[in-house]
Amino acid sequence: MKTWEQWMQKQERQMALQTALTLLEYDMETQAPEEAGKYTARVIGILNSMLQEETLSEENRCMLEKLAGKKSLTGEQAAMVRQAERERKRLAAIPADEYREYSELAASSTGIWARARREGDFSLFAPTLEKMLEMTKSFAARQAKKGQDPYDVLLDDYEETFTRETLDPFFSLLKSELTSLLQELTSAVQHVDDSFLYRHCSAEQQRQFAGRLADYMGFDRKRGTTAESEHPFTTNLHNHDVRFTNHFYEDQPASAIFTAIHEGGHALYEQGIRDDLTQTPVGGGTSCGMHESQSRFYENVLGRDENFWKPLYGDLQEMLPEAFGDVSLHEFILAVNKPQPSLIRTEADELTYSLHILVRYELEKQLFDGDLQVRDLPEAWNAKMEEVLGIRPENDREGVLQDIHWAQGSFGYFPSYALGNAFAAQLVHQMRKALPVEELLAQGKLSVITAYLREHIHQYGGTCTSRQLLCEVTGEDFNPRYYVEYLREKFTGLYLSGE
Amino acid sequence: MKTWEQWMQKQERQMALQTALTLLEYDMETQAPEEAGKYTARVIGILNSMLQEETLSEENRCMLEKLAGKKSLTGEQAAMVRQAERERKRLAAIPADEYREYSELAASSTGIWARARREGDFSLFAPTLEKMLEMTKSFAARQAKKGQDPYDVLLDDYEETFTRETLDPFFSLLKSELTSLLQELTSAVQHVDDSFLYRHCSAEQQRQFAGRLADYMGFDRKRGTTAESEHPFTTNLHNHDVRFTNHFYEDQPASAIFTAIHEGGHALYEQGIRDDLTQTPVGGGTSCGMHESQSRFYENVLGRDENFWKPLYGDLQEMLPEAFGDVSLHEFILAVNKPQPSLIRTEADELTYSLHILVRYELEKQLFDGDLQVRDLPEAWNAKMEEVLGIRPENDREGVLQDIHWAQGSFGYFPSYALGNAFAAQLVHQMRKALPVEELLAQGKLSVITAYLREHIHQYGGTCTSRQLLCEVTGEDFNPRYYVEYLREKFTGLYLSGE
Repeated sequence: MKTWEQWMQKQERQMALQTALTLLEYDMETQAPEEAGKYTARVIGILNSMLQEETLSEENRCMLEKLAGKKSLTGEQAAMVRQAERERKRLAAIPADEYREYSELAASSTGIWARARREGDFSLFAPTLEKMLEMTKSFAARQAKKGQDPYDVLLDDYEETFTRETLDPFFSLLKSELTSLLQELTSAVQHVDDSFLYRHCSAEQQRQFAGRLADYMGFDRKRGTTAESEHPFTTNLHNHDVRFTNHFYEDQPASAIFTAIHEGGHALYEQGIRDDLTQTPVGGGTSCGMHESQSRFYENVLGRDENFWKPLYGDLQEMLPEAFGDVSLHEFILAVNKPQPSLIRTEADELTYSLHILVRYELEKQLFDGDLQVRDLPEAWNAKMEEVLGIRPENDREGVLQDIHWAQGSFGYFPSYALGNAFAAQLVHQMRKALPVEELLAQGKLSVITAYLREHIHQYGGTCTSRQLLCEVTGEDFNPRYYVEYLREKFTGLYLSGE
Repeated sequence: MKTWEQWMQKQERQMALQTALTLLEYDMETQAPEEAGKYTARVIGILNSMLQEETLSEENRCMLEKLAGKKSLTGEQAAMVRQAERERKRLAAIPADEYREYSELAASSTGIWARARREGDFSLFAPTLEKMLEMTKSFAARQAKKGQDPYDVLLDDYEETFTRETLDPFFSLLKSELTSLLQELTSAVQHVDDSFLYRHCSAEQQRQFAGRLADYMGFDRKRGTTAESEHPFTTNLHNHDVRFTNHFYEDQPASAIFTAIHEGGHALYEQGIRDDLTQTPVGGGTSCGMHESQSRFYENVLGRDENFWKPLYGDLQEMLPEAFGDVSLHEFILAVNKPQPSLIRTEADELTYSLHILVRYELEKQLFDGDLQVRDLPEAWNAKMEEVLGIRPENDREGVLQDIHWAQGSFGYFPSYALGNAFAAQLVHQMRKALPVEELLAQGKLSVITAYLREHIHQYGGTCTSRQLLCEVTGEDFNPRYYVEYLREKFTGLYLSGE
């Protein structure tokens, strides 16, 4: 297989450039000194161009074309070719000069967004956002097959096959079911005390406990490390170097606790990918949505379950006594699940979270359909929040300026979060047939649950799409009913069972 | 200047790859998890090949040839071309397949060396070292101009123009002068107490004080950061991101103290390079020797001077009370300068340090001249130590296996250390004409001294060679007499003045 060997050599170069970029970006968030930015950004820009060049080279295109037709490829090899061709096509739709303009705009735009957010003034960000939207639209239109909707192109980029056709009914189901469930719960949760979640704990105490959690979850420190950053995230150089970060707010200890479990879930996914796949085009988790399904499964399905805490709650009380010393486990669980309409997505509870995503999905559609102008976004945002969650932001910092995603040009990304929640629910419904999940949690046998995910999801990396994995594991196509049922059962059980 | 712009674009790509490699290597030493090595090494190998490819491209060669003839270049531009052509020529002498073989050998050889050192068994390392020496010799021979000695090629690579012709008389001067000075001091220093240098201090205490020192020296934390590693080092992505590491031995607090000052000296050099030079081929310190002159100047000339500590010693006593609480400043200074023959280079005092280098220089010459076989190295090392320092290692761990350099293929590198000492002495002799060095130290005005170095050395980066800089600053060619005189004056003053 001469073409295969040759292509692998080409592919390796892209992998090496991508790994360098990953480390540079990780380093910028966690360790680089304040004034390094401008100079290091140049380096990142150049390496990105080199990566684009390698990806778009005529040689790469020809080899991919040859390989796509080969019958003798193994399943893994075929998946690598498919994934590489997908990425090549995505980049090929963008003219090199416009890509550079776009990269530069994206690099400066988060800074502009941050300033607008700090000053609570959307008008500072609007012209940049407008340009960003315009360029993204034009790239998507170029990439679109005949008759394909540009917004669908972006949705498909982030989560293959999950276009409006799937997402419209999905979100409409969530809108009716979740808002009515929220209403049913309103009076019952009104008096649930969560004030202790805002007691003071030192960053060092929290750091210690977050470390304890990572170990408890089975995060392999020989193949990973942790750090701190403004916004927590997980990244990896390959499956033997997976890193996640946290941020410690001294008056909000629950934030770092659930961040640790969330990012730990992402990290377990990456550490679980097979050695023969890492450092190839299918060497990472298969999609944002599937990644979120893992992080949210650990954070919410497991991490907010009373059984998860049975073996751990004593440690929590001991290590963060000021916050939780006088709080019972059951009180803790009621507080960290308390559903209530709120303004900020990242602080939302498990029940209302996907409604925040719905707001963004509906606005993105309007922006792409031309039914909404950027300048009218703040008002549209506030109206949509009021319609869906019944509360209205008092300023743009709590409203349209809260998320970084649009500033980064990530239109079509938000739905992945809601899909992740739904994937997780569908997966856990299946898992319960094979494993006594709650019992295992209560016995501290989290590793059995992780082994299940390793076997059925993690190891495959990007060789299958989310949809294929879901079908393979659950024997059924994507079905959001599991998510709605899971939420109903969990929340009525917690707050309406008359306990 | 179309060629110039085109070349700069090419050059940028090399810079970006080099920056990525620097960060990957820094990360491996400071943060990467234990099992990442094998996978990340692959990435490093590929990026290195890409860098070699860029450097050796026919396009780069042609552009450099064109530019070398241009009269219209500025001094800085000409220096960039000169430096880039030097590097290109060095790499061009090595056939690509042999370079890959060499890189792989070098990558595994430090591991083999480390094992041999751990087990104190030179025979485990000998075959690798032999191969390493043979390849280095053959590359140097290919690179040599007609009639040029291969060892001179390597010496010149590390420190331009400093070949045997300069180094032979330099080391012969050191041999006679330093050994006789050491003898004169022997009885006087015999009873100098340095036992408190081995008292226990926690790593955290040392970390705090090392941070205090970095700040005191003027290390700009907005343009740099610090970390920990097994072997301390300084590196930089550019002049706005300079990093140095330390290592905290709990029973040897002086080690981290002087490491901080030493690495801080390297870091100040890199932070002092001009913005218009950073990220170009002349964007770093001009040579290993000049770099060592800066680090050793801060560590030894300043850092082991009583005046340096006058504003700081109270802090040291307060922050490391177990070690220095009951030690007077004068006792501290006598201890940290105490000259005595020892076996390990990195632990040697300022006076005997260059004699350790002499041993290595003489052995390297014999190895390159074919007068010494690798298998006979341990015995030759021990005999040379006895001849020069009057003590004999009892095993190879304390002898020929102590340094990593040869395992890395760095033959011809060691003399830089001794040259650095001599450059520093020549520079400080000149500096004293302009600045009251001791007075400034005692007043805590280190910044005035650093400003002098910034003005005369740092800012120029690699635009001039060490030799040119020395001539420019001191009005005189390299003159090692200043070093010998500096040592005599300092050590007789400290230990023989009858104080």
